[in-house]
Amino acid sequence: MGRAYNFSSGPAVLPAEVLYEAQKFLVDFKGTGVSVMETPHRGKVYGAIREEAAALVKELAGLDDGWSVAFIPGGASMQFAMLPLNFLREGVGADYVCCGTWGGKAFKQAQIAGDANIAADTRKASPAYAPSPAEIRWNPDAAYVHITTNETISGCRMPEIPDPPSPLVADMSSDILSCPRDYSKFSLFYAGAQKNLGPAGAAVVAFRDSFAETCSAAIPEILSYRTYASGRPLYNTPPVWTVYIILLTLRWLKAQGLENVFARNRSKAAKLYAAVDSSGFWRGVARKDCRSLSNVAFRLPSEELEDLFVKQAEAAGMVGLKGHRSAGGIRASIYNAFPEAGVDRLVEFMKEFERRNG
Amino acid sequence: MGRAYNFSSGPAVLPAEVLYEAQKFLVDFKGTGVSVMETPHRGKVYGAIREEAAALVKELAGLDDGWSVAFIPGGASMQFAMLPLNFLREGVGADYVCCGTWGGKAFKQAQIAGDANIAADTRKASPAYAPSPAEIRWNPDAAYVHITTNETISGCRMPEIPDPPSPLVADMSSDILSCPRDYSKFSLFYAGAQKNLGPAGAAVVAFRDSFAETCSAAIPEILSYRTYASGRPLYNTPPVWTVYIILLTLRWLKAQGLENVFARNRSKAAKLYAAVDSSGFWRGVARKDCRSLSNVAFRLPSEELEDLFVKQAEAAGMVGLKGHRSAGGIRASIYNAFPEAGVDRLVEFMKEFERRNG
Repeated sequence: MGRAYNFSSGPAVLPAEVLYEAQKFLVDFKGTGVSVMETPHRGKVYGAIREEAAALVKELAGLDDGWSVAFIPGGASMQFAMLPLNFLREGVGADYVCCGTWGGKAFKQAQIAGDANIAADTRKASPAYAPSPAEIRWNPDAAYVHITTNETISGCRMPEIPDPPSPLVADMSSDILSCPRDYSKFSLFYAGAQKNLGPAGAAVVAFRDSFAETCSAAIPEILSYRTYASGRPLYNTPPVWTVYIILLTLRWLKAQGLENVFARNRSKAAKLYAAVDSSGFWRGVARKDCRSLSNVAFRLPSEELEDLFVKQAEAAGMVGLKGHRSAGGIRASIYNAFPEAGVDRLVEFMKEFERRNG
Repeated sequence: MGRAYNFSSGPAVLPAEVLYEAQKFLVDFKGTGVSVMETPHRGKVYGAIREEAAALVKELAGLDDGWSVAFIPGGASMQFAMLPLNFLREGVGADYVCCGTWGGKAFKQAQIAGDANIAADTRKASPAYAPSPAEIRWNPDAAYVHITTNETISGCRMPEIPDPPSPLVADMSSDILSCPRDYSKFSLFYAGAQKNLGPAGAAVVAFRDSFAETCSAAIPEILSYRTYASGRPLYNTPPVWTVYIILLTLRWLKAQGLENVFARNRSKAAKLYAAVDSSGFWRGVARKDCRSLSNVAFRLPSEELEDLFVKQAEAAGMVGLKGHRSAGGIRASIYNAFPEAGVDRLVEFMKEFERRNG
């Protein structure tokens, strides 16, 4: 086949323009005689890549000079570990809002490392939903409060970002820079790159320097946010290629125009949810007011039909539609780089499938 | 220019065959319709990549079934942090042999996390050398002892691997699978991939499962070696592309034949050291019995001449020869993938340079 329509939840589809550019320069990066994979991390080529990528994140998220942007190895799961190691200490815990699997995983890692409290928990709700600010019980002494803005597995997003009394920290892996958001409400936010920002291998982490300054000094340097503050020299060898592809993706995002990308994301999601709501054959997983713009999760009348749907869709050039192994069902991840034509094709396929099997 | 001769210390030169193959399939991996950068980490494509890469490490290092091989994000510096977090506890420390910058960095991170002792320290020696087993004072109760088999900055290697009373752990970032070695002496060894095994973004970590079982349960899962033991499902999204390039590099290594690569490495190093020893114009950094086969570090009569050397070499298509910023001088890193023709070219250039400036 040619390029498939890739609905995978992450690693996920990258803009075709990014892939073609990466391919063109893979062996010899713009006449330097070496690949980006072979270029020294303290040299000019990588220095320029890193600087531009960090500046673009700041520009696109509207962050001021009090913020640092770092590309930290390990994805969101490494952030689940770093957050409690940096900020929890004897007598000081953190609040976690858990509205799905990922919030629960973040909470579990904080429990291992220190004192973590559940401020709200809707993990067992069906249909899936995220708590409204009124349902959350904050601990006023928390070192930070952690939310997950979009739960990738259930396709459930927080429709309203709360205003807690403590520094607000968010896992935005599946919706960073994909919808309008006031990023200045946060003290730290992060995203595994492999959904909206590039390939797997790093988390994009933005934090207020004043917040990072409150972290513990008693942890190894590579795990400390201080190590990644603006103006610090690189501590370790970063994932050079990953950051390069993140840069190309951010350039693509800027060239598209954020507002255009947001509008396209709304349109893609609206088309898919309209198909899901069009008959009783389909059932959306998330409550309507919490429906994700990134991950559209739905069920069919039986698991057999779901398996058939995934198989036939794949044969028709649409891959990655199988729901997470813990949840089953169908999940269409339609991040920034996912083309609207692929959504149109899926909607068409859903109609055909219902006609044949409904 | 075409492909440069890249003497960088890491990220470093990759085999040209690896780069051309990666380029060919970058946009569409072998008819799957997606890039490896876009492929799900729990899918068949990545499953096969990871399995083959781990199996090749075991095969090439001669490891038996009691070992696990993992690709852990963050390079050697993450291992500096993970080791003490996993194995140190109240009343149980670790021994560190420090014969250069990297051993010292590993030691510092262990000091932050627990009780770390220096078993031998030759960091200030000039010429640089590594201690013989008789110079090392082991603490018999250490949870592990840590050595650095090759110090990249000074170009100094341990000519003899010691036999300590506690589990032996080694940073082999700059000489893994580059020379004959009995890997069964170790309980754990690791290497940032970006020198001999692939691009930056992961450490290749091999450990005895029985050793990993002694690690602490009180640390976040992504930092625990147990999480990466054979047979465990993937805990987090791995750096998929990085592991793919590691696989291509390991395949290349196997196809070349380890013995052939070792012989070529010896030949490359011998040629360069012969040039260094050919006149008083050059001065080797490491003591002769400890000279690295991976990193040939040497000085010229003045820093001005060193700067000129680096500049003129670069103009002649030889990049990455500047010594580490902390040490100055010249350093030629000649890992497995560095072609012997590049060493011949450098030796020729050294002769010309001495003629003009000696």
